[in-house]
Amino acid sequence: MTGPRPVDGATPPIALTIAGSDSGAGAGLQADLKAMSALGVFATTVVTAVTAQNTAAVTAVHPVPTEVVAAQLAAVLDDFAVASVKTGMLATAPTVRLVADRAAAGDLPNLVVDPVMVASTGRRLLDDDAVDAYRSHLVPRALLVTPNLFEAAILAGVDPSAHADVDTMVALARRVHALGPTWVLVKGGHLPGVHVTDERPAPDRVADVLFDGTAVQVLEDTLVVTRNNHGTGCSLASATAALLARGADVPAAVAGAKRFVHDALVGSAGWDLGRGHGPLDPFGWSSR
Amino acid sequence: MTGPRPVDGATPPIALTIAGSDSGAGAGLQADLKAMSALGVFATTVVTAVTAQNTAAVTAVHPVPTEVVAAQLAAVLDDFAVASVKTGMLATAPTVRLVADRAAAGDLPNLVVDPVMVASTGRRLLDDDAVDAYRSHLVPRALLVTPNLFEAAILAGVDPSAHADVDTMVALARRVHALGPTWVLVKGGHLPGVHVTDERPAPDRVADVLFDGTAVQVLEDTLVVTRNNHGTGCSLASATAALLARGADVPAAVAGAKRFVHDALVGSAGWDLGRGHGPLDPFGWSSR
Repeated sequence: MTGPRPVDGATPPIALTIAGSDSGAGAGLQADLKAMSALGVFATTVVTAVTAQNTAAVTAVHPVPTEVVAAQLAAVLDDFAVASVKTGMLATAPTVRLVADRAAAGDLPNLVVDPVMVASTGRRLLDDDAVDAYRSHLVPRALLVTPNLFEAAILAGVDPSAHADVDTMVALARRVHALGPTWVLVKGGHLPGVHVTDERPAPDRVADVLFDGTAVQVLEDTLVVTRNNHGTGCSLASATAALLARGADVPAAVAGAKRFVHDALVGSAGWDLGRGHGPLDPFGWSSR
Repeated sequence: MTGPRPVDGATPPIALTIAGSDSGAGAGLQADLKAMSALGVFATTVVTAVTAQNTAAVTAVHPVPTEVVAAQLAAVLDDFAVASVKTGMLATAPTVRLVADRAAAGDLPNLVVDPVMVASTGRRLLDDDAVDAYRSHLVPRALLVTPNLFEAAILAGVDPSAHADVDTMVALARRVHALGPTWVLVKGGHLPGVHVTDERPAPDRVADVLFDGTAVQVLEDTLVVTRNNHGTGCSLASATAALLARGADVPAAVAGAKRFVHDALVGSAGWDLGRGHGPLDPFGWSSR
C-alpha cells in the first residue's frame, strides 16, 4: 500500500491538510505535504498558524486569522476534488469550529483529526477553549481521531498519566470514541516503556490501540531508537489520510501509515540534521 | 543532475525557501518543498504570506508580520546547515529588507532571488514600495536573480512589454545585472510567441537568457503545451537552489532545473486537477 502509486498520466488522488507551518519542516503541513507526496497523493494545504520552529524549540506562534483560514478552505474545496482531509494544529477555538462546521456540512470526506495540543518540544499549540471545541464539535465529525496518550486523556477528561499500559489505552479509546468519531487510534508509541503485556515492560516494542466502538485492535511494532522523530505524529495522520484518498479502509490505511512512518524513522536514524529532534525520511533517500 | 541523490544513510543537503504559502499547493513554498524534495534536498521553509489560492484565482493574501518572518529565519539559520536559499513572494518592503539584511550579513549562501511580483492569475503579490527594496537591497546580494520578462522590466526601470525578442531579453538582463547580482536569468518562457531568431517567431520553442556580466547564454527549450503550468517559476528557482545545495555551479544548476521543470510540465500535462492552471508533476508520477 505504500510507495508512489503508478498513475500512468492520470490525475492523482487529492488530499487536504489543515495544519500549522513548521519552519524546520519536520512536522506540520510540511510533514503532511511530504508524506502525502511520498504516497503518490496531491496534497492541498490550509495554513492555520505560522510557527518559528526548529529541531530543538518552538520560538514563535502566529495564528492565521480565522477568516483567512476560511478563505483558504473555500479556495481548495471550490476547485479540487478532495478525497480525504487531515487536520493538525488548529491553534484557536474559532478555527476548530470553522473546520467542524465544514465537516458538519459534509465538505470534508474521510476526515482524520490529529488533535495536536502540545509540540514534541513541550510548547502548547492550542488555546484552552479550543479543547472544548474539539470535544463538542470536531471530534464527533471525524472518521478517525488519532490522539497520543496525553491528548487522549485531555479529550477523555481524565488526568494525563506519564505511564500507561494497553488496558489504560483501551479505556481511553473507549472514552474518546464516546465523543462520536467512527474510529479512534490511541498512540502509545510516543512514550517509552509502554507495557504490551501485563507481565513485564517491553521497552523495545510500542503499541497503538485502534477502536471502532466494537472491536479493539492492538497494533504492535518494534520501537525505532532514534532522536530524529520530529513530525512522527503528523506523518502518521497524513499518511493515513493519503491512503484513505487512495481507497483504503481505515484499518488498512492505519497499517500502511504505520509501516510508512516506521520506514521513515529507520531512514533518518543516522541523520545529523539540527541539534535536537531531527526529521524523518519520508522519501526513502537513505534506503536507495 | 536531476533525480534524488543517493545518500546511503547520510544527512541530505539542506536548502531554505522564503516564500508565500499557496493553499492549492501548485506554487509558492509548496512547489519549492516538492521540487527540493524531488531533487533529494531537505527543504526548510520560512512563510512570508498566507494566500488563499487555487488553480483559477488568488482570493486572499495575509502577509505574515515581519517579526514572525524574522523569528522563522532565526529558527532555521540557528539550527540547520543551510547550503542554499531561494526567495519567492516576500509580500512587503520590510520583509524584503529583513531578508536583504541577513544576506548582507553573509547568512544566506547561494542566494537565488525569484522576484515574485504578480501571480500567474494576475493578482499583485508585492507592495509598491517593496520594488525599491528589491532593487536597492536584495537583488544586489543575490548569486542569481530569476525575473520573468515583466519582473525584469520592473527591476530595470523600463516599461514592461507584452512581446519581446532575445535582444530585448539580453538588454533587460544587462540592466538587471547592473543592480549588482552575480548572475541574472531572464525567463522568456512565460510569454507565448517569443522570437528565438531575428527572422520569424518560433512559437513551439522558448528561450531564457543567462548572463554573468560577461557572457550571454541563450537557453532554448521546446515549449510544453499545457494549461497545467501553475508554479513553473517557483519550481525553476527552487530546483536551481536545490542543485546549488548539491554542489552544482550556476549554469549547471539552471540547466538541471530547466530539465526538471520541463519533465514536470510534461508529466502533468494530462492531469485534470482544478478548473484553471493546474500544478506540475515534480515527482514523476506520470512517467513511472
